[in-house]
Amino acid sequence: MSPDFTAARLITPVIQAALAEDLGRAGDLTAQACVPAGTRLSAVFAARSAGVISGVETVALTLAELSPTAQVETLVADGAIVAPGAALARVSGDARAILAAERTTLNLMSRLSGIATLTRAYVDAVAGTRARITDTRKTTPGLRALEKYAVRCGGAVNHRFGLDDAILIKDNHIAACGSVGGAVRAARAFAGHLVKVEVEIDGLAQLDEAVAEGPDVIMLDNFSLADMREAVARVAGRAVVEASGGVNLDTVRAIAETGVDVISVGALTHSAKALDIGLDALPG
Amino acid sequence: MSPDFTAARLITPVIQAALAEDLGRAGDLTAQACVPAGTRLSAVFAARSAGVISGVETVALTLAELSPTAQVETLVADGAIVAPGAALARVSGDARAILAAERTTLNLMSRLSGIATLTRAYVDAVAGTRARITDTRKTTPGLRALEKYAVRCGGAVNHRFGLDDAILIKDNHIAACGSVGGAVRAARAFAGHLVKVEVEIDGLAQLDEAVAEGPDVIMLDNFSLADMREAVARVAGRAVVEASGGVNLDTVRAIAETGVDVISVGALTHSAKALDIGLDALPG
Amino acid sequence: MSPDFTAARLITPVIQAALAEDLGRAGDLTAQACVPAGTRLSAVFAARSAGVISGVETVALTLAELSPTAQVETLVADGAIVAPGAALARVSGDARAILAAERTTLNLMSRLSGIATLTRAYVDAVAGTRARITDTRKTTPGLRALEKYAVRCGGAVNHRFGLDDAILIKDNHIAACGSVGGAVRAARAFAGHLVKVEVEIDGLAQLDEAVAEGPDVIMLDNFSLADMREAVARVAGRAVVEASGGVNLDTVRAIAETGVDVISVGALTHSAKALDIGLDALPG
Amino acid sequence: MSPDFTAARLITPVIQAALAEDLGRAGDLTAQACVPAGTRLSAVFAARSAGVISGVETVALTLAELSPTAQVETLVADGAIVAPGAALARVSGDARAILAAERTTLNLMSRLSGIATLTRAYVDAVAGTRARITDTRKTTPGLRALEKYAVRCGGAVNHRFGLDDAILIKDNHIAACGSVGGAVRAARAFAGHLVKVEVEIDGLAQLDEAVAEGPDVIMLDNFSLADMREAVARVAGRAVVEASGGVNLDTVRAIAETGVDVISVGALTHSAKALDIGLDALPG
Amino acid sequence: MSPDFTAARLITPVIQAALAEDLGRAGDLTAQACVPAGTRLSAVFAARSAGVISGVETVALTLAELSPTAQVETLVADGAIVAPGAALARVSGDARAILAAERTTLNLMSRLSGIATLTRAYVDAVAGTRARITDTRKTTPGLRALEKYAVRCGGAVNHRFGLDDAILIKDNHIAACGSVGGAVRAARAFAGHLVKVEVEIDGLAQLDEAVAEGPDVIMLDNFSLADMREAVARVAGRAVVEASGGVNLDTVRAIAETGVDVISVGALTHSAKALDIGLDALPG
Amino acid sequence: MSPDFTAARLITPVIQAALAEDLGRAGDLTAQACVPAGTRLSAVFAARSAGVISGVETVALTLAELSPTAQVETLVADGAIVAPGAALARVSGDARAILAAERTTLNLMSRLSGIATLTRAYVDAVAGTRARITDTRKTTPGLRALEKYAVRCGGAVNHRFGLDDAILIKDNHIAACGSVGGAVRAARAFAGHLVKVEVEIDGLAQLDEAVAEGPDVIMLDNFSLADMREAVARVAGRAVVEASGGVNLDTVRAIAETGVDVISVGALTHSAKALDIGLDALPG
Repeated sequence: MSPDFTAARLITPVIQAALAEDLGRAGDLTAQACVPAGTRLSAVFAARSAGVISGVETVALTLAELSPTAQVETLVADGAIVAPGAALARVSGDARAILAAERTTLNLMSRLSGIATLTRAYVDAVAGTRARITDTRKTTPGLRALEKYAVRCGGAVNHRFGLDDAILIKDNHIAACGSVGGAVRAARAFAGHLVKVEVEIDGLAQLDEAVAEGPDVIMLDNFSLADMREAVARVAGRAVVEASGGVNLDTVRAIAETGVDVISVGALTHSAKALDIGLDALPG
Repeated sequence: MSPDFTAARLITPVIQAALAEDLGRAGDLTAQACVPAGTRLSAVFAARSAGVISGVETVALTLAELSPTAQVETLVADGAIVAPGAALARVSGDARAILAAERTTLNLMSRLSGIATLTRAYVDAVAGTRARITDTRKTTPGLRALEKYAVRCGGAVNHRFGLDDAILIKDNHIAACGSVGGAVRAARAFAGHLVKVEVEIDGLAQLDEAVAEGPDVIMLDNFSLADMREAVARVAGRAVVEASGGVNLDTVRAIAETGVDVISVGALTHSAKALDIGLDALPG
Repeated sequence: MSPDFTAARLITPVIQAALAEDLGRAGDLTAQACVPAGTRLSAVFAARSAGVISGVETVALTLAELSPTAQVETLVADGAIVAPGAALARVSGDARAILAAERTTLNLMSRLSGIATLTRAYVDAVAGTRARITDTRKTTPGLRALEKYAVRCGGAVNHRFGLDDAILIKDNHIAACGSVGGAVRAARAFAGHLVKVEVEIDGLAQLDEAVAEGPDVIMLDNFSLADMREAVARVAGRAVVEASGGVNLDTVRAIAETGVDVISVGALTHSAKALDIGLDALPG
Repeated sequence: MSPDFTAARLITPVIQAALAEDLGRAGDLTAQACVPAGTRLSAVFAARSAGVISGVETVALTLAELSPTAQVETLVADGAIVAPGAALARVSGDARAILAAERTTLNLMSRLSGIATLTRAYVDAVAGTRARITDTRKTTPGLRALEKYAVRCGGAVNHRFGLDDAILIKDNHIAACGSVGGAVRAARAFAGHLVKVEVEIDGLAQLDEAVAEGPDVIMLDNFSLADMREAVARVAGRAVVEASGGVNLDTVRAIAETGVDVISVGALTHSAKALDIGLDALPG
Repeated sequence: MSPDFTAARLITPVIQAALAEDLGRAGDLTAQACVPAGTRLSAVFAARSAGVISGVETVALTLAELSPTAQVETLVADGAIVAPGAALARVSGDARAILAAERTTLNLMSRLSGIATLTRAYVDAVAGTRARITDTRKTTPGLRALEKYAVRCGGAVNHRFGLDDAILIKDNHIAACGSVGGAVRAARAFAGHLVKVEVEIDGLAQLDEAVAEGPDVIMLDNFSLADMREAVARVAGRAVVEASGGVNLDTVRAIAETGVDVISVGALTHSAKALDIGLDALPG
Repeated sequence: MSPDFTAARLITPVIQAALAEDLGRAGDLTAQACVPAGTRLSAVFAARSAGVISGVETVALTLAELSPTAQVETLVADGAIVAPGAALARVSGDARAILAAERTTLNLMSRLSGIATLTRAYVDAVAGTRARITDTRKTTPGLRALEKYAVRCGGAVNHRFGLDDAILIKDNHIAACGSVGGAVRAARAFAGHLVKVEVEIDGLAQLDEAVAEGPDVIMLDNFSLADMREAVARVAGRAVVEASGGVNLDTVRAIAETGVDVISVGALTHSAKALDIGLDALPG
């Protein structure tokens, strides 16, 4: 992933909010008390466990908020797979600023890298099948775009970003429309020519009626492996087939082998463990 | 925990940001396409697993952003321990608004309840000892105050909220000051009379020099159980003793039994699993 | 168009910004000088020309910012076709607030209704053909979502809302990729399964190569009518065909009759004339 | 017009809002898909029709938001009259950033230049008379200060910027005060010594009573040419005389020749057609 | 002063900023610790010294931010002259909310009332002369409009609100233009017909040249009383005459008696002492 | 005081708000009218009275908002004691930008320096005693952190920054809890291990009960000197003793000599007179 202006544009407001809540009204009391003004420090952000890095730009962007003159050298690119101990970025400059930026930097980069690391595990698990791994809208409030960027760093693709960039018809919508076919028909009539329509079905009984109305994607919700195989066969390429529900690292390979095109995994964003990253001061 | 104005003040901006990223520029396409305007819906937010609830006010506050006339009845209080299937809040009103609010509500309430649930497990594990469980600054960017509220819902107390409401001297500060004693001395001279001073030490060798300068709290970082016991004995009530590092649900009881006053656990906020909560439509 | 919470959510921030720039630091000097505090006023917002209404909710939302106790009765729905003199909304309440809100209300509602009116003219012009009218990204900075809502009020459908909800490959992208086929191939590989891919071509020479890679939509940029007909025939339903460039009320019917599926019109948002709407005080 | 810090201060927030709505949550998908990271591009913003330029700084300010290292050379000054094909600004730098900035830049610069162009037509039409052309408050929500800047680029002067920087008494205010004389008297008593007072009258019958109270400006609303001449004669220099209503390019010269001092034209901002401007890539 | 929507619109954002800095991340710790949830309280805001009240609406607006159900009864109007002990507003409701709102309410209302009180002293001191008292731009950053409102509550009128609503030519501008006459001439040519032009002169030597160019206002900066009388005589009604510099409660009467029209006093906003106001709990 | 990133982070948003209210919608009319574009100016900010400087960084930060290329040389550090006439900062660059920035810069720097100057007078008055001077929460809405920074520049220490960083029990809290002892007990149980607890008492009768519960600080509210001495003796080092109420420059020395540890002074922030600072143009 190239850390281009898109990521910077998204990371900066998050950093500003995080610094505001960490520095509060009085700033870093400990640094003001114990670190003489003007002290300089060189240090390295390093991974403490193996993983996939996402958000390494956070180092430079956080420090830039506090000390425009500090130096940052980024040592890996987003998407890189690193071993424990790998150096990620080297910083040098005003010691008070670096220490004040430390926790904010680590909180964000660890979270994004944790998502990328978990995503990579799912992607590797389905290697060689036709299935692509995708995320959901089960993201942290305010961080969705960044967390979906982390998912891309881990090698997966993104599902929709919000309620407004694709139509996904679920059981409640079907109930309101009267039938699964009616719902897909209503959606196709409403949608502009650049909007895709997906419909979620609970069982094979809904499949033919749904496919007949020409949705772009059919989501199989909590299907058995046998029913997935049957659905893939019946759809026969007329729509993209997505599997959802009950997906974990133990089950994802078998699901992929049923022939589905896409597997969505809520855990990528709501259950990823932060990657352990730390800051090590270099000898002066 | 009484869900008083404090929590509402903190939750609302998070909800607004989350709705903005979910509704985007075009709003909920699916509801506009498939749910006739004016359709009414009644539904219940229910726990799918056992846990401790935090942030139940999110239901009312999110819906209020989209439909001021919707009705919300809150059925449990924050801090309540619930069984799988427990009804948490009942909503009724405009179906489009309820469906558009669903994911934003669930994302936030599940996260906070997950933190409260994990916290409660730690608090229960040390029951009967003198130790209190506390959190860290390893929180989600932008959600710190809410996540610390969830920690309180789980029965623990909060560590400092930011760099500006207490002094915590770590290894880098000690290096900048020349000695652990010098650092505590500098901190006491700097601090106003309402600011506490804590110092982190890496081993027993630093203990006596640190205590001699009168810090309010001594943090034992990654001490063995034997060294913790020794430290508690040597401090002899002259400072609060906090244990940190290597704490998990398997080790926390033994740590508490060494006699420390406080145990800080980063996992409360950076590794909590979201509590599974869902929305069930009620028969019309 | 039902003026549901979606429009309110978009209109309110625009109103707040407009009131801020109109009321400034000292408020409405004229009303403070000439209208005694507590004076009450009843008045009607009325169309001065025939047109299609969009944004009638602006009346209530603007007044609510200045006087929560004022009464507003909305008399037509968005999308309504009205004759000159038609009453759109009746207001009564504090005279200073109504007068201070007048210009802000009119500026926004007139603009949106102007867009809806122009859009309706295009939609009517192609009635009976298969072509649907759509807008572009040539919108007023900060008002895109509202202007696209006005387009829907006029009976057309929306093109993409931004650079992030669909892929539209233009000449510069083709140049960067080396060939039109390569560009579509790169786009399909990059896009998630809910993102559509459109490609713009300048002439028939690019058509077959483009269609062969399976884009969802082909845009014919500034084609002659003869070439459009030829393109429709060659695509033969394998992609949606969109006509663009040189579209005005004199040419749109003939373009529609070539058999294209969609016609995009920049003028809908960048050249619409404001609909003339005024506020008439009612006899006290 | 010197494009000094004032214009930059006003343009930047508009650009930021426009980029936010165009880049959304996922950024420019097409560029990410089709333009390799690191690709460089040189291009020229050029006028496609004759007109008066306003807001050429938008080119540099928009690109600076996305790529601080891109180069921009501005080739004309605001207020310049240009022929079709005239080069306005040359850019070079990261291709993804330039392409992502293109539409936002064009939308704003085209709108402002369209206003300046229309304004210049009115100013030229009254050349040689004593009349000055001025604008109104019929501006786009959120863009008033910029649109009034564009009016100045076209050679006209600005009417008041909002309700708070001058008093303009209209029919409803007169009704609330009981008489035109009473309203002007109330306004003079209220106004500080740096605030001007203008009064709008509907016919010659109100003229003498209004002038007797010493307003700074008299606005003649929808007067016939004969009545305008009569009013100018009767006022005899005791107040500035402003003509308003029914002004267009066919009527403005005759109005100016009645001897009025100022002619206000709502169309400058609410009916200007965007100037056609485009971006042309330069051969690599 | 009627506390109409204008003041509310200005006060609310100030209150929100003040509450944010007072409640911080953890809210009112003392109330959470010591006041049981649900405790109710009735209390009265009362003046501790004599003065003129400004901003009494702050009581209701602050409390509304924390507890929408609290009751507030306002007992005096802005502009009222009160004796020590006077009750200003009565509140009842949730005790935690009232106590949390107390300091924010007092800080703002005391400051505004202090300004109104000092202003009233100046206004009373010049009673019976033709002079009006006015303020300056020497205001608290971010509070200018509110402080100028307080000046009006004290019976004075406002000078300009900012650099953009009137022209005031000072020595540096004269130096840049070459002469006082040239500067006024440049200003008149630049200004729209609703903008007044004021020029500041340092001595009688500049007077005739300045007046000859027809400014609306002449400011006499640090003139002796004799020179002020001479200036008033020479201007002879051709411009408003404003005295500035060296104005205090000991000198203002004599200045007014020279015949000047306006006296501007920086002290109104930069040296006003806060009016002492307190909150008294009522017996339960 | 080192003007490190902490102060810059706090000053910049205040400057932006102040510039917005001073430049308004149309910018600096006078400079646009009278100062030719491109004119250059050199000038010096100089103290007109003796005092202690705080916020000298404001000069550079304000000018940077308007003209990034202007040069600023800061000549004194915050906390410096200066004589009348002392040069504080030298600026050179675009004349329009410097003149537009002048008032905003002066308004903020004068206020902060006024606070620092008054604080220093109190600190000097108690020299040689054990007492430290501290501030209160009686600060300007929106400027609390900056005003508390100015207090530090004057040589005093800060009391709490808000309701959330320490517990201060007052009479209303005691009433809600039933007794002073009960209130302190409740507070200690609630507070985390890094939060201090202070209790305010009205007379000696409450002293022993309060001290017995182990608060960190006892505040003596409006005690006589004799009672203060008695309280200091009885507390005997078991808590920090703070004197409050009735403190002014005439009384503070005697209060300090009673042996109290801390004296809090509301006047530092709510009654400081702005330090007189001006801008002098240098000969071209």
